[in-house]
Amino acid sequence: MEKKGRVFSGARPTGRQHLGNYLGAIRNYVALQDEYDCIYCVVDLHALTTLQDTQRLREWTYEMVLDWLAAGIDPERGTIVFVQSHVPQVTELHTILSMIAPLGKLLRLPTYKEKVRQQPENVNYGLLGYPVLMAADIALYKATVVPVGEDQASHLEFTREIVRTFNYHFGPVLVEPQAKYTETPRVLGIDGVNKMSKSLNNHIELASSPEEIYARVHMMVTDPQRQRRSDPGRPEVCNVFSMHKIFTPPEQVKQIDHDCRTAGIGCVECKRIFAGHLIEHLAPFRERRARLSQDPDYVWNVLREGARRASVIASQVIEEVKDAVGLPKRR
Amino acid sequence: MEKKGRVFSGARPTGRQHLGNYLGAIRNYVALQDEYDCIYCVVDLHALTTLQDTQRLREWTYEMVLDWLAAGIDPERGTIVFVQSHVPQVTELHTILSMIAPLGKLLRLPTYKEKVRQQPENVNYGLLGYPVLMAADIALYKATVVPVGEDQASHLEFTREIVRTFNYHFGPVLVEPQAKYTETPRVLGIDGVNKMSKSLNNHIELASSPEEIYARVHMMVTDPQRQRRSDPGRPEVCNVFSMHKIFTPPEQVKQIDHDCRTAGIGCVECKRIFAGHLIEHLAPFRERRARLSQDPDYVWNVLREGARRASVIASQVIEEVKDAVGLPKRR
Repeated sequence: MEKKGRVFSGARPTGRQHLGNYLGAIRNYVALQDEYDCIYCVVDLHALTTLQDTQRLREWTYEMVLDWLAAGIDPERGTIVFVQSHVPQVTELHTILSMIAPLGKLLRLPTYKEKVRQQPENVNYGLLGYPVLMAADIALYKATVVPVGEDQASHLEFTREIVRTFNYHFGPVLVEPQAKYTETPRVLGIDGVNKMSKSLNNHIELASSPEEIYARVHMMVTDPQRQRRSDPGRPEVCNVFSMHKIFTPPEQVKQIDHDCRTAGIGCVECKRIFAGHLIEHLAPFRERRARLSQDPDYVWNVLREGARRASVIASQVIEEVKDAVGLPKRR
Repeated sequence: MEKKGRVFSGARPTGRQHLGNYLGAIRNYVALQDEYDCIYCVVDLHALTTLQDTQRLREWTYEMVLDWLAAGIDPERGTIVFVQSHVPQVTELHTILSMIAPLGKLLRLPTYKEKVRQQPENVNYGLLGYPVLMAADIALYKATVVPVGEDQASHLEFTREIVRTFNYHFGPVLVEPQAKYTETPRVLGIDGVNKMSKSLNNHIELASSPEEIYARVHMMVTDPQRQRRSDPGRPEVCNVFSMHKIFTPPEQVKQIDHDCRTAGIGCVECKRIFAGHLIEHLAPFRERRARLSQDPDYVWNVLREGARRASVIASQVIEEVKDAVGLPKRR
């Protein structure tokens, strides 16, 4: 089938993925494979901008990619999955693009200012250049489409601008990618307050066993005003109810809405129902994950083949770039 | 013979070299070969930080390296001469080092502030990161010694600091280079006021013919107070006299000093003497240059072999670096 273009997306290696990663990105990554040639990249170099402790990068890469593959990201359908640093042409393009990346714009990006607030003790040159490296990632593969959430919109705009600047100076070599906005639910952690995240330990791992899922769901904070079983609840402020809307059949969601408001159902029972649906939804994932992890080389083999295929594109594009810039050819 | 260490130095591709390049750098490059393993790099990527028009980079690389080789930089003595972008591992190390390069320090470097004054319309991210790329150049080859002029001292100090930071975080992989300060005369252009430079067109090219040298020397500004042949001159303010001190035998310099102060010699004659010595000094250079340029592939062959030999070191060091950082290995 003729595909509609080439998707590129990168994710930092963060180890085992959780429900927030799944609903915010992975589910979308899987779906995009139907219509696009997809390149999904574990951006280990990007991870260095904020990480002080880098010694678990390998493990985190392995665990994340295993989850991706178990979730349905499928190299056999043509998707390229690889590790950023395995295709070093990205650092060549990064260095070249840095020469045309306007410093003032980088210093004014809200995402940069936010990072400076988060890690004032580690404001490094690479942190400022994060959008330049991201632009290199995308441009190196001449991606036409980049799935973005709201928080990445300014970065993609930066990529588009730097591609235009490059092409203006050196000729039409690079491709200006289009943003593909995907509506993703804001997934809260089991605390019901913060965004689900591993670092806050408020997450539910996709690879959890049914027992672990029951245990984590049981800890979920619900409507804080519903103190007793006999109090009526307010589904619209309840995080468990938000999850029901994603994983529970619509008819049953309606019933739960009614039963919660009339105190016909308690939170424990309500959570049990949600946990059951989540466990069922993730059953194929768990099975595939168990099967794939029997061969500890499988993930690395996928990444090797991904790097090989990515390199084919990258070497070609970097040659075009260097030629357009006018760098002396290596003979 | 056992060498005392490994020298690394880089120079932007600026085409045909002039007397300022020769006295400020090339002469020293040649001499260092006696005691050190030398690596001399045409830093074409660095050139992109300030160049808007990059289409002459190839020609300028060729002409500069031809001059280097004609001046006595000699691959047959083990010296590696290569083009920066031909060994792309430098961009990998640059990207990795950028993650530990303190932004505040870069923004405060006087050389950066000076560049911003010079090209306020083109303040790019790479311009700010110049010292990071330079650190990567040096560290990639574990150079132990770097010849520096005064204007580069702060950059080398930055390299030493970033090497220490890397080793502190990731283990003792990189080598902290020592500065080798070389006294180099401040070479003025034929205008007698500004530093000799191609862009000011006040230079004398090493590759000039004897006639061209005579013509350029004839244009040299001398003591501005010596208006007539009969006026006594002041050698201490005369640029031609500074040059005599470098190229003319000491006895004759003494004589000229005396004759100038007593109006015993005119500027025209004085210049003729200097031009004669310069032409004689550069005779072996011109001969070698003529011989080498008969084979238009010679320079490119030297650069190819240089890149090959540089790559052997670079691949090894970048593997050590990536391994120390903890990036997942490509299998």
